[in-house]
Amino acid sequence: MLKITKPTLVVNKEVCISNIRNMSEKAVRNQLRFRPHFKTHQSREIGNWFRDFGVRAITVSSVGMARYFAQAGWDDITIAFPVNVLEIGEINDLASSISLNILVENSAMLQLVKKSLKAKVGVYIEIDTGYYRSGVEINRVNQVDEMISLIRGHKLLEFKGFLTHTGQTYTTHSTDEIRVRHADSMMKMLSIKSYYSDIFPNIEVSLGDTPSCTLCDNFDGINEIRPGNFVFFDLMQEQLGVCSREEIAARVLCPVVSRHLSRNEFVMYGGAVHLSKEFIINGQSKRCYGAVGQCTYGHEAVAGDQTWVSGLSQEHGIIKADFDDIRHFTLGGVTEIIPVHSCLAADLAGHYITTEGEIIEKMGK
Amino acid sequence: MLKITKPTLVVNKEVCISNIRNMSEKAVRNQLRFRPHFKTHQSREIGNWFRDFGVRAITVSSVGMARYFAQAGWDDITIAFPVNVLEIGEINDLASSISLNILVENSAMLQLVKKSLKAKVGVYIEIDTGYYRSGVEINRVNQVDEMISLIRGHKLLEFKGFLTHTGQTYTTHSTDEIRVRHADSMMKMLSIKSYYSDIFPNIEVSLGDTPSCTLCDNFDGINEIRPGNFVFFDLMQEQLGVCSREEIAARVLCPVVSRHLSRNEFVMYGGAVHLSKEFIINGQSKRCYGAVGQCTYGHEAVAGDQTWVSGLSQEHGIIKADFDDIRHFTLGGVTEIIPVHSCLAADLAGHYITTEGEIIEKMGK
Repeated sequence: MLKITKPTLVVNKEVCISNIRNMSEKAVRNQLRFRPHFKTHQSREIGNWFRDFGVRAITVSSVGMARYFAQAGWDDITIAFPVNVLEIGEINDLASSISLNILVENSAMLQLVKKSLKAKVGVYIEIDTGYYRSGVEINRVNQVDEMISLIRGHKLLEFKGFLTHTGQTYTTHSTDEIRVRHADSMMKMLSIKSYYSDIFPNIEVSLGDTPSCTLCDNFDGINEIRPGNFVFFDLMQEQLGVCSREEIAARVLCPVVSRHLSRNEFVMYGGAVHLSKEFIINGQSKRCYGAVGQCTYGHEAVAGDQTWVSGLSQEHGIIKADFDDIRHFTLGGVTEIIPVHSCLAADLAGHYITTEGEIIEKMGK
Repeated sequence: MLKITKPTLVVNKEVCISNIRNMSEKAVRNQLRFRPHFKTHQSREIGNWFRDFGVRAITVSSVGMARYFAQAGWDDITIAFPVNVLEIGEINDLASSISLNILVENSAMLQLVKKSLKAKVGVYIEIDTGYYRSGVEINRVNQVDEMISLIRGHKLLEFKGFLTHTGQTYTTHSTDEIRVRHADSMMKMLSIKSYYSDIFPNIEVSLGDTPSCTLCDNFDGINEIRPGNFVFFDLMQEQLGVCSREEIAARVLCPVVSRHLSRNEFVMYGGAVHLSKEFIINGQSKRCYGAVGQCTYGHEAVAGDQTWVSGLSQEHGIIKADFDDIRHFTLGGVTEIIPVHSCLAADLAGHYITTEGEIIEKMGK
């Protein structure tokens, strides 16, 4: 049994590796390069679990994360965030030692980067197919043309193709809706690929989100997938219908420090600095900052859907409990919280431990 | 000029020290012990800034934070979080080397702690005056009696008095409402103090929240204040009417990486892992994850109230900009974000820098 004394992110290694296996096999089945996004776990050790499945190329969300994984031996990395010229020094350093891909989505930044670039990088143009976060909107062909003309003929810039994040799958209300958004995004990406493939016969299309990559089966014409969250999954993915409770590999174990029976509430040691303030709206139309899972660490709770984390301050978490669940919470015991957004909960942890008690180091702040 | 390349929490030392001075002088004026809460900054260096104002006793929110500040030379620390028996080993270690106060709010946990306690600790009973987070509700006198009888006569437990956090000031809509909540909470605390002062003539009352401590002037009968957030303040405090924009000492400086003029939006490098997902509802009835401040770091923006951080993902931040503000955002420049909740933004930072470029170390994860 794990000795938990304070909020601790516990990874079920078996579940995690099964999630990696499933996504890896899907990539093989669909002849896709599997370039997993490592921003979810930020751990060289969990990164190594991917190597057994033949993964050699990865995605990260920051230059610092690229450096961390390059030091861990990864030599083919895409930084899937619009390139930031202020970090050009670090980008040059990295690009001189590994195969580095950057993301561009506007000509102005691309011109700034060109001026200071000193080593060869691969370039993806980020396309926005309807998420409206970053990326050039799919219909702005002359902006794409302008970027391509800036890339062509520059000896340090190698045009790789088009990349998108279909983040619009995160605001859906059914798995059918996720499939439709994926199909729409894919269709748009294949159009632009086809439009430019006379000039660039080898250009690629890279897609990324966990909902599409997990649920959808048609990837014809796509070259690469970059899902990240699937490694742990979380409550948000469960609510979207993307994963089952059993597939969620991350838990935050939190000591129970107080109970307030008159209002069916418990206080746990576990707050916004452990779980993040990300919430979903639950079946009771309330903000839910975490679900309470089956716990084998000091109490026997199998909490129902009427029991959830209803509030978080910096270190306190409030659990609203169904009356029938109350007996499962023991002062001096530990409760198991299923995070709403595992990427953010993992980012907040100094390290993880596995259900077997093995410590897993991760990137620091 | 600061060289900013990625999201960085910048502390205006002058403003910060002025905030410390104001609160410190208020404590002196009201004959209160000033025991500031160090959970906001988590930094030994910023802790030292308090020493010049005669501060010798501090508050923290976790055992780990108590250890960090004990190592930095602080020897009178209250852990203002309901005691967690699972950490009794560390509590014993600390209590044997410094003057440590713990918080209890239920008999069951107190009994567990008594069994394993090996060094002398001061004990405050946490009272709930209407925040409904932790603490024994003020009217449950027999629960308080039960705890006191468990404390009395135990040679390692010294009863110090009653402590509350008037967190209900954070859901107010006017400064008058804050004053009323403070008066109500204070009146309740003085009643319970008076009820027990025959038996314990030296018991104390400790109050804590930044809104009350900043705005209110009547602390008659109170012994100690424990505000924390005031050291930096933030957008939430500004919205409550507790501080002015000029008193906010923390900014997160974020590179501007993209602009989408068709929708008046900018993308900055700065997301939930830098600012947290805490939001306020702004004047446009929208979720606001940060305000855009006057910036002297690469552009000249003085952004109006129509310009705000409208969305955050892990590393991306979206700024919705008033058309007139657009000219202030430069690709390759840096924008200045005023965090909604400085405690959480500070917790997410690996270190801070001052406006003069001095690096400020802080507690790690």
